[in-house]
Amino acid sequence: MPFELTILGSSSALPTSDRYPTAQVLNVLGRFFLIDCGEGTQIQIRRNKIGFSKIKHIFISHLHGDHYFGLIGLISTLNLLGLKNDIHIYSPSELINLIQPQLDFIKGEMQFKLIFHPLNFKKPQQIYTDKKIEVFSFPVKHSIPTCGFLFKEIGKQPNIKKELIQEFDIPIAKIKEIKAGADFVTTEGKIISNTILTTPPPIPRSYAFCTDTAFHKPTAEFIKNVDLLYHEATFTEEMKDWAKKTRHSTAADAAKMAKLANTKKLIIGHFSARYKNVAPLIEEAKAIFEETVAAVDGKTYKVKSRPAEKAVN
Amino acid sequence: MPFELTILGSSSALPTSDRYPTAQVLNVLGRFFLIDCGEGTQIQIRRNKIGFSKIKHIFISHLHGDHYFGLIGLISTLNLLGLKNDIHIYSPSELINLIQPQLDFIKGEMQFKLIFHPLNFKKPQQIYTDKKIEVFSFPVKHSIPTCGFLFKEIGKQPNIKKELIQEFDIPIAKIKEIKAGADFVTTEGKIISNTILTTPPPIPRSYAFCTDTAFHKPTAEFIKNVDLLYHEATFTEEMKDWAKKTRHSTAADAAKMAKLANTKKLIIGHFSARYKNVAPLIEEAKAIFEETVAAVDGKTYKVKSRPAEKAVN
Repeated sequence: MPFELTILGSSSALPTSDRYPTAQVLNVLGRFFLIDCGEGTQIQIRRNKIGFSKIKHIFISHLHGDHYFGLIGLISTLNLLGLKNDIHIYSPSELINLIQPQLDFIKGEMQFKLIFHPLNFKKPQQIYTDKKIEVFSFPVKHSIPTCGFLFKEIGKQPNIKKELIQEFDIPIAKIKEIKAGADFVTTEGKIISNTILTTPPPIPRSYAFCTDTAFHKPTAEFIKNVDLLYHEATFTEEMKDWAKKTRHSTAADAAKMAKLANTKKLIIGHFSARYKNVAPLIEEAKAIFEETVAAVDGKTYKVKSRPAEKAVN
Repeated sequence: MPFELTILGSSSALPTSDRYPTAQVLNVLGRFFLIDCGEGTQIQIRRNKIGFSKIKHIFISHLHGDHYFGLIGLISTLNLLGLKNDIHIYSPSELINLIQPQLDFIKGEMQFKLIFHPLNFKKPQQIYTDKKIEVFSFPVKHSIPTCGFLFKEIGKQPNIKKELIQEFDIPIAKIKEIKAGADFVTTEGKIISNTILTTPPPIPRSYAFCTDTAFHKPTAEFIKNVDLLYHEATFTEEMKDWAKKTRHSTAADAAKMAKLANTKKLIIGHFSARYKNVAPLIEEAKAIFEETVAAVDGKTYKVKSRPAEKAVN
């Protein structure tokens, strides 16, 4: 039951020899969500052996080129591969205008639709849901309208202990009620408590994506307790004035957010090309939030299922 | 005195794990000409340590995405780097419309101009010249209007043998005439033949770029005797019907063109993603034209200076 993030690109505006511009894929139980789509994303998708046919939902945080210049190439490739799944794109509404002339050039041949869902930059919003997962956008603080994204597994119902179904002769008709929290009354009138009958489900897993953004306190409340947080750390504190001016974060900012939001693990990324070695960024973040790693293009970060009794609240 | 071609991308429409879409840089005596600009070109420019500030002339053969989707990312990066050199773009005239909305998004900040030069799809045309090099476009045969490009060094004047200047006491005023082909008359009235006084200059070097195109006989006449030819070889002969339908070439077509045009060396490229191994393509071409190699991304192919006496006509 995977819940795992693969980094396709972790550079900031200027790609480097070993970092592509922003793009990542979150695999939640076989659903593949592409988050941002910088130039070269389709090449990274191929290199990381992610099936193109699995990409049906694309989330674009904002309209700086390093977050969407790879979209037209990806769409073109999906078309050349003859794929037929409609593609949902969650993005600033202007995106369509930016790529329309290029789309017009290929649109006649396309066997799938592009369905655009405009983001709301005023307040958090649920933008996608199915039986297993909910996705929310939430405004962050950048030089142009930008959203972060929160992916949350929908909690499972408790499991009924099989041996007790037999022992108390529980009819199938009652199982749904017990899963929803009801106690069971035996034919002899004995009440069997729900807590005896069931084992709690694992804690729903969650992931939050925050780039590009300055440190933005309201984000902490919205992403509270996420298992995994990707937060930009474009600069170190030495450049904090420049970070502030350009509405980016330092590594310390990212770590403060991870701490404030009580996240389990932080991945920092969106590194300025000036850092050939990201050790100073990781060191700065770890001093504040120990469970920090630096994003590596092509690496997959798994979020493990945690049993309820070990829950950290 | 370099005249060398670096392949940045040699895939066809679908990039693969080890081949980017079409892009290459020709370095002629320190002038860097970028030919086509598929997605990821800026990443390949960086990886191959080509200075961004050297790119002032960009040639776009046609408007299929795998030949220009990297252009907006490259322009954006040149802007972020604060470069100020104007960029000349030789392309189908519609290109500007395709990238205009994205340009509008960044244009306010740009410190350089983009100067568009529309290509002529009816006949060959000189599109650039300076003291050392001429560049021509010529129409090829593809599913949409497409041009090839021919880069030719401008021939140098002969060198005067220094020891003879002294021996015959040739005044400086006469040197220009002798370089232009005149004989020299000594003060005693003795005529010294120009062939005695001078050594012929090296043969001007040349390079032709032909992709995307089906085999197109008129091309051979136009690129006659080029030192180096890059010709697409999207398929093997097994796929020749499909090649014909899509207006692409087989490896045999590319080799036939190299032979017909009396080129010195052929690089085949623009390989369909179906060929994990390009050995069958290279084998097919070599059976017709021995001096063939398969393009490798990141590899540089040098054209050496050849003394006139070894000229092959």
